[in-house]
Amino acid sequence: MSSNRVYIFDTTLRDGEQVPGCKLNTEEKLMIASRLDKLGVDVIEAGFPVSSPGDFQSVEAIAKLVKNATVCGLTRAVENDIKVAAEALTFAKRPRIHTGIGTSESHMKYKFKATPEQIIERAVAAVKYAKSFLEDVEFYAEDAGRSDNEFLARVCEAVIKAGATVLNIPDTTGYCLPEEYGQKIKYLKENVTGIHNAILSCHCHNDLGLATANSIAGVMNGARQVECTINGIGERAGNTSLEEVAMILKQHPYLDLNTNINSTMLTEISQLVSDTMGMPVQPNKAIVGTNAFAHSSGIHQDGVIKHRETYEIMDPKDVGAETSSIVLTARSGRAALAYRAKNVGYDLTKRELDTIYSDFLHFADKHKEVTDTDIHQIIKMSEVSRRMYA
Amino acid sequence: MSSNRVYIFDTTLRDGEQVPGCKLNTEEKLMIASRLDKLGVDVIEAGFPVSSPGDFQSVEAIAKLVKNATVCGLTRAVENDIKVAAEALTFAKRPRIHTGIGTSESHMKYKFKATPEQIIERAVAAVKYAKSFLEDVEFYAEDAGRSDNEFLARVCEAVIKAGATVLNIPDTTGYCLPEEYGQKIKYLKENVTGIHNAILSCHCHNDLGLATANSIAGVMNGARQVECTINGIGERAGNTSLEEVAMILKQHPYLDLNTNINSTMLTEISQLVSDTMGMPVQPNKAIVGTNAFAHSSGIHQDGVIKHRETYEIMDPKDVGAETSSIVLTARSGRAALAYRAKNVGYDLTKRELDTIYSDFLHFADKHKEVTDTDIHQIIKMSEVSRRMYA
Repeated sequence: MSSNRVYIFDTTLRDGEQVPGCKLNTEEKLMIASRLDKLGVDVIEAGFPVSSPGDFQSVEAIAKLVKNATVCGLTRAVENDIKVAAEALTFAKRPRIHTGIGTSESHMKYKFKATPEQIIERAVAAVKYAKSFLEDVEFYAEDAGRSDNEFLARVCEAVIKAGATVLNIPDTTGYCLPEEYGQKIKYLKENVTGIHNAILSCHCHNDLGLATANSIAGVMNGARQVECTINGIGERAGNTSLEEVAMILKQHPYLDLNTNINSTMLTEISQLVSDTMGMPVQPNKAIVGTNAFAHSSGIHQDGVIKHRETYEIMDPKDVGAETSSIVLTARSGRAALAYRAKNVGYDLTKRELDTIYSDFLHFADKHKEVTDTDIHQIIKMSEVSRRMYA
Repeated sequence: MSSNRVYIFDTTLRDGEQVPGCKLNTEEKLMIASRLDKLGVDVIEAGFPVSSPGDFQSVEAIAKLVKNATVCGLTRAVENDIKVAAEALTFAKRPRIHTGIGTSESHMKYKFKATPEQIIERAVAAVKYAKSFLEDVEFYAEDAGRSDNEFLARVCEAVIKAGATVLNIPDTTGYCLPEEYGQKIKYLKENVTGIHNAILSCHCHNDLGLATANSIAGVMNGARQVECTINGIGERAGNTSLEEVAMILKQHPYLDLNTNINSTMLTEISQLVSDTMGMPVQPNKAIVGTNAFAHSSGIHQDGVIKHRETYEIMDPKDVGAETSSIVLTARSGRAALAYRAKNVGYDLTKRELDTIYSDFLHFADKHKEVTDTDIHQIIKMSEVSRRMYA
């Protein structure tokens, strides 16, 4: 695999599913896992097997179902977690255990009540134990975003020696700025002995709205895996949005970084996840929101009608969305009205358009949106119509 | 005003309101404008006066109402637009006209069918004409994100000479990466003669999920105004979220950049805008989503119960949200169950907790969320209860 390939690690069914109200049954999880596999994700994190009997069953069923992607189970750096995860992954074609422990001062002191040396010992023990079950072991340094880089590098070095194949550097609390997160990845790339034996992974949270930008900063500085979810769902303000990362890399070919994602499936899978989890996607969500390709201001509509690329950097078809829509509101101009009127059968002259536009504005000022039926009505009621059909 | 002050330019009522379905009447706009003024925004873009009679009236009414913020009206680089905007702003305490024209190759060629020299002429003429009505004139170089930096610098120089007080550098199509957008601002800061006479402004769109990161890259490189909307609403995938920018600057004091925003009003104003515009905010929206401070996974809940800062970088109270919630689901651990059980009156021993936890998991695997009533029920039905109340 070439070094400009970025692996997409989807955690919709783990970090996404652990959210209030998002719980799915096994059947729903299998439906999503199967679509994720078709979408072309490289890794599906299927759950946290030790957390409940239901989750164990789901991970096991997903492991049996998935054909292409690696199937991954989450654990703490705890023997029983790891043993149970390995058991749940028995039937996976490509199983991965994801284990780890907190490495920030706050996590070590308040959560684990352990010294840095004890944390390294527990990390190494967990990775070694996981390796006794299978080959592919990813290690997460929880709260890496707020961890001291020098200590983080020591942890990474130790777990690589213990056999970790992937190093997950999570910005667990969503605090980092892109520059800072990128520098952290760069520091590890330059200061960890044996780093070429492992893949660095970004797992960013969106508490300040920066998850996507941080992940992109990560891959621009040497990370080669991004952990993300469909629609950016996940704990609190969620995770990095898979659809945003995939489209940023696709639309910026000069970065020379590629994923295996079939982008034309993005809209469909976004709706599947939103529907099954009962988790609405806001209309202005990037890539997959219902308004993502809707133009309503007169200035923009005029531009798009003249030449689509003036206001669109993506073809809606590339993400499986319907074609760009020209929505009529009181902010729409003559070009949009003429365009929509033509679509419903009226080829207006400039003078006719001027007359109807004024009627249109008075109508639009009182309504949220002007529909095709409204256009017929406005034209029929206008003087133009009286002349046209006189 | 010190040079580390970042001005917040709110365009909820202009770029936000022009969105499909978001149209407001004058009364609703006045309600939002009044809250924005209390929130502490520096500029309120109230509308696009020439676009419709209703919008003219709204801008005029907002201009009369607002006490502290500058009130701004949008125009194209067209004499009549500017004249009408100046008229609508007659009663504003601090009026601003926002005029501009496209500067990218695509916009000049397909939308304006004009040469670069003609574009500069029209830009200068528009700024001069606006200056004949009032002092504070902001110029936007539409599609600056895809404009050639050298040409952009020439445009900026010319409009500063013509009297522009603010230079808006919009990433109109949401295409830039943060590094690229930051470099663009830096280039202008370093290459435009007279740049110290104007404020550089970021106006970023969210088509790839990078609007907030781009705006932050902008201010880190010398811009001192951010154009944004409540909840990030706006054309297509929307604009930069005001609440994200305000909290990023507040939570990263080392940047030494301040706004005038009273962050404790953010949740309330987010709901007001969402309700009046009928524009839902997704639960995982940063800062203002209903899940933004909800913890549901066992690992996170355990941490938050031990010490809030292990998983939270903001105090929910700082954004006017209710306190962090510990939501019980099948991914919750013993610590969360004990915490919530205690809240409803059960002080469980370790052994009692072990027994009840297993009953809890079986219940939780079949339900999306476990409520206080469910907790009572689970405990009453369990063996522990038979022993406790025997």
